[in-house]
Amino acid sequence: MSEAAMACDKGGVETGPGLLTGISLPAAVIHEAPLAHNLAWMQRFAEAHGARLAPHGKTTMAPALFRRQLEAGAWGITLATAPQCRAAFVHGVRRLLMANQLVGEANMGIVAELIEGGADYYCVVDSAENVRQLGRFFAARGLELQVLIELGVSGGRCGCRDASQVEALVAAIAEQPSLRLAGIEGYEGMIAGGDEVAAVRAYGARLVDTVRLLHASGVLESEAPIVTASGSKWFDLIAEAFDRAELREHYTPVLRPGCYVVHDHRLYASAMTDVKARHPHLEGELQPALEVFAHVQSLPEPGLAIIALGKRDIGHEPDLPMPLRLYPLCSHPSAATTPLDIAGWHATHIMDQHVFLAIPGDARIAVGDVIAFGTSHPCLTFDKWRQLLLVDEALKAKESLETCF
Amino acid sequence: MSEAAMACDKGGVETGPGLLTGISLPAAVIHEAPLAHNLAWMQRFAEAHGARLAPHGKTTMAPALFRRQLEAGAWGITLATAPQCRAAFVHGVRRLLMANQLVGEANMGIVAELIEGGADYYCVVDSAENVRQLGRFFAARGLELQVLIELGVSGGRCGCRDASQVEALVAAIAEQPSLRLAGIEGYEGMIAGGDEVAAVRAYGARLVDTVRLLHASGVLESEAPIVTASGSKWFDLIAEAFDRAELREHYTPVLRPGCYVVHDHRLYASAMTDVKARHPHLEGELQPALEVFAHVQSLPEPGLAIIALGKRDIGHEPDLPMPLRLYPLCSHPSAATTPLDIAGWHATHIMDQHVFLAIPGDARIAVGDVIAFGTSHPCLTFDKWRQLLLVDEALKAKESLETCF
Repeated sequence: MSEAAMACDKGGVETGPGLLTGISLPAAVIHEAPLAHNLAWMQRFAEAHGARLAPHGKTTMAPALFRRQLEAGAWGITLATAPQCRAAFVHGVRRLLMANQLVGEANMGIVAELIEGGADYYCVVDSAENVRQLGRFFAARGLELQVLIELGVSGGRCGCRDASQVEALVAAIAEQPSLRLAGIEGYEGMIAGGDEVAAVRAYGARLVDTVRLLHASGVLESEAPIVTASGSKWFDLIAEAFDRAELREHYTPVLRPGCYVVHDHRLYASAMTDVKARHPHLEGELQPALEVFAHVQSLPEPGLAIIALGKRDIGHEPDLPMPLRLYPLCSHPSAATTPLDIAGWHATHIMDQHVFLAIPGDARIAVGDVIAFGTSHPCLTFDKWRQLLLVDEALKAKESLETCF
Repeated sequence: MSEAAMACDKGGVETGPGLLTGISLPAAVIHEAPLAHNLAWMQRFAEAHGARLAPHGKTTMAPALFRRQLEAGAWGITLATAPQCRAAFVHGVRRLLMANQLVGEANMGIVAELIEGGADYYCVVDSAENVRQLGRFFAARGLELQVLIELGVSGGRCGCRDASQVEALVAAIAEQPSLRLAGIEGYEGMIAGGDEVAAVRAYGARLVDTVRLLHASGVLESEAPIVTASGSKWFDLIAEAFDRAELREHYTPVLRPGCYVVHDHRLYASAMTDVKARHPHLEGELQPALEVFAHVQSLPEPGLAIIALGKRDIGHEPDLPMPLRLYPLCSHPSAATTPLDIAGWHATHIMDQHVFLAIPGDARIAVGDVIAFGTSHPCLTFDKWRQLLLVDEALKAKESLETCF
């Protein structure tokens, strides 16, 4: 990384120094051990269910993590946009599952270059209009585009709502020689309200039934048609729906969780508790690996600490950042590396560059102390950083992980 | 910009092509004419009140905009963190007003290098502990650090709550030979509830009274002590408070609005209406200059459009993105560049990569059409982009504006 580029980055992070000395805070860090654990855990989980893993790369957009995911055995990387696919491809990812519609000629042009460069690229379709646009564009380029029909749910996001829409889409695709129908795709994460577990199971069954029906009707132009779904919350239910001898043998079932790689401290932690409750014999579980370290900046009133950390540095949805541990760098320098439990401390407000923390009136804390924060939903923390730091147990920086947002 | 760097960016934006052809969407754009207008308008406003302008750079973190602000007559650039100051300095900004506490030795080290490099740097202080830390650090480096005492409000963010705290801080600063007390700083944006206008006026008066008192007592080590405040909402009230012959002659009153440079479509638009109501004879007003263009991605149900735009691309606080105009690129290609009014259309939900738009059941719209969106509060749109496009009235890209988040 050039000096100018580093100077243009808020982190300007270098590897080597410890997180409590020498590194400008706030800094986003990934802990080495839980990261390695999560990579292996989810790969094993997918394989145990006869499924391939194509982790959603939009969570991290960190090529160094894509590489680790592929090395752990992932079948490919899922992405959400054409520029994301380009970023992954440039960094060596060859199989790109774009779990989203490809819209706009400039974006189609990006994808055409990837296909010309050798990418095994898939996108999803849910409208005849988009199918015509894609067919025209890729025919003009003399390329073949692999598409998956998206199944949606009523009141949800994209995707065909019913079988008649799927049928019409199959017909529209058949009219475009440049398009190859390779399977079906869905996203169960839009299901909310009522008996969600039952609804996700039903959705998984609908995906399986649909891909079988299309396969039987001979419209799938693939030896092992793809059937794919799963975000980071219901991945176990989708895996169960896909876990059939028939699918293992004749299809390519693909799971696409993204957040698992660093997990989180509340939203997905709670989802993991549900997964464990549904599968009491499941071995191990995901562990939170992503934290943001920041300084206490001001103690202007009893019971209030202002932290040098804001919306520019850490996600704050659906939960405000969670203070996890205090490193008494200034209040107790000789024990700076011994973190203190600060259970009960909590954020009350966040601004662009500040977090407001409610603390006990008699808290032993000083300006300059360091607090490690966790979050709910890692996606919106990753995109605040051009680099994250991979750290070991001694909080020593081992690697700087570039992001491509 | 290198090819690898471009490939790692979601925009990969090039200048030249028009926004509706050739540029991958979503794309964040700044319209040239309102930008130029705003730059001139706020500079004139500050000068008319005898104040200097140090626009808050954290809004855009775009060096090309800093340069325009300085060329328009700005006294300096305000920033929020040491890495932000470094980014501005590397790009030619010499006077850096860090309207925030400087905490952590790594951050102090960044600032020390800027001062050694010739920066005219100021930060704020509000605690004796931080003053001691700064005094020790900069003394060891053989450097002088210019500090401003921050005045805060009860229940607010950082800053001294009352005169006795200011007094104690003055004494603490006096004990540190490496610190030079250059004035006072405040931020009226934390005032909320009750008669806000009266409270902001009172706060402005308190700032003026305090700087006078400190000046009279001889503790300010500056020929023209600084008194500075003002975000983007109440800048007129702070300007009024500062607009005194005495301040013009013997002090350096500094206004620090940031959002004015591109303004917005609701939050600050409404604040501008208030400014105009308070000053009926004020000439002209700020104009919205920032928009994000995105494609219609899916039309899965009557009355619902899914837009290829999400939290990764546009701010969504305090208001969801606002659809402004539809370019019928696919629904009416021969009139693609004639935008249609879509008043009444509105966003109902936003996800990482999708916006849900409620539209009329009989809307003339097709997948692939382009919609221009406005926002409330520009700060959290800028930080989603490594580059924004400066466009002319024909939506032709004239310049790519790099950001340094």
